[in-house]
Amino acid sequence: MRKELELDSIRSNLIRQEETIIFSIIERAQFAINKKIYGNEINIAGYDGSFFKYMLMETEKVHARSRRYQSPDEVPFSTDLPSPAIDDYEYEWPIKHNSINLNSQILSIYSNDVLPLICKEGDDGNYGSSAVCDVAILQAMSKRIHYGKYVAESKYIADVEGYNRLIAAGDEEGIMEKLTNMQVEEKLLERVYVKASTYGQDPFSEKREYKVSPQVIKDIYYKWIIPLTKDVEVIYLMERPAKN
Amino acid sequence: MRKELELDSIRSNLIRQEETIIFSIIERAQFAINKKIYGNEINIAGYDGSFFKYMLMETEKVHARSRRYQSPDEVPFSTDLPSPAIDDYEYEWPIKHNSINLNSQILSIYSNDVLPLICKEGDDGNYGSSAVCDVAILQAMSKRIHYGKYVAESKYIADVEGYNRLIAAGDEEGIMEKLTNMQVEEKLLERVYVKASTYGQDPFSEKREYKVSPQVIKDIYYKWIIPLTKDVEVIYLMERPAKN
Repeated sequence: MRKELELDSIRSNLIRQEETIIFSIIERAQFAINKKIYGNEINIAGYDGSFFKYMLMETEKVHARSRRYQSPDEVPFSTDLPSPAIDDYEYEWPIKHNSINLNSQILSIYSNDVLPLICKEGDDGNYGSSAVCDVAILQAMSKRIHYGKYVAESKYIADVEGYNRLIAAGDEEGIMEKLTNMQVEEKLLERVYVKASTYGQDPFSEKREYKVSPQVIKDIYYKWIIPLTKDVEVIYLMERPAKN
Repeated sequence: MRKELELDSIRSNLIRQEETIIFSIIERAQFAINKKIYGNEINIAGYDGSFFKYMLMETEKVHARSRRYQSPDEVPFSTDLPSPAIDDYEYEWPIKHNSINLNSQILSIYSNDVLPLICKEGDDGNYGSSAVCDVAILQAMSKRIHYGKYVAESKYIADVEGYNRLIAAGDEEGIMEKLTNMQVEEKLLERVYVKASTYGQDPFSEKREYKVSPQVIKDIYYKWIIPLTKDVEVIYLMERPAKN
């Protein structure tokens, strides 16, 4: 099996991504929710959308020119992005080529459900800083969730016949059940909770208060990151045989 | 005194910025040094410079359009940036207007001294990710160092006559001595060390190894962040009276 698909490699990759997600959430929490940036109140010359969407799109344009979305583990939120400005690079694809992209769903969950959990109400005028943090969180969440493709490919290779049977029968529920490991999920949630407690607390603050409640970060994993990752896994597996 | 200039407010702002600096350094350390991105080996269509400089400039263009550099606590690394694409905002300036910008020095220290301390040798192909992290660290270091302007204004207001005497005499050494508080610096370094230990270690890793040595992060503060902040303070004070 290719190294990127070995369970140990996937596991340590997912564990490392937890830091990125938790750090970026803690960074966003220092600013108020700043609702204005998600609506249409801020006028942007030559752009008809929210300030946040503008920042997301413009950042993705820069990243697209630097070849980010050629990589098998990255998918963009925006459409009509420019082509890379740098020479092509032969990315290795340990997974099957695919166009699975749950980012519109991730974006809507982030704006409606996640943001109000991590930010205090109000407007502190830190629009640019808030948007920069939003982009970082969304990119980290998207990468983590779409890493389900690697997880799925690895599990598929470990039991080709078992999965092929379920895929041929169109049994999505059966696939979901087969790839679910409750013990692993519980361990992950426990780990995220402890990390969020460790990183979210200034070790010198007298108040011993959290920048973001560890329970909130655990909930974000429980309610959205884990389920969406598994959705990606099921979608990937359902369309996989056609790509053999 | 204006709230932004009260020592408590400045102190908590500087302490909060420590998280941003430490988190971003830990993020960069997951990738190899990738020297290629700082040289001229990567061809970029329509741009004659390193891949890293390209990413820095393009990111700053996006941030300039979102008004980042109108804020009194932000200065850019790039020149010829576009004007904001959003409506003007009356930023309050608790400090005197100035054009102090030590970013070319910060950039050179970062590339030559800081990077080799935090990254392992080699090339892992993660060029875009490395550059994105570089930009985040540089922005965080730059903001922290230029916050010296706030520190200086606050100290000046607390002893106008004392500072005016030294400024009139052109006594930069005397100013440096007057604004130095060794006890505060030692406490800061100790705090940075403990934070770097706390945030830089996966609480579940069996190996108990650091992503970046806390001593290295403390050294970055000791050798560069603190001295450069004080340089900003001296420069700000030396040119301040002319701005009254």
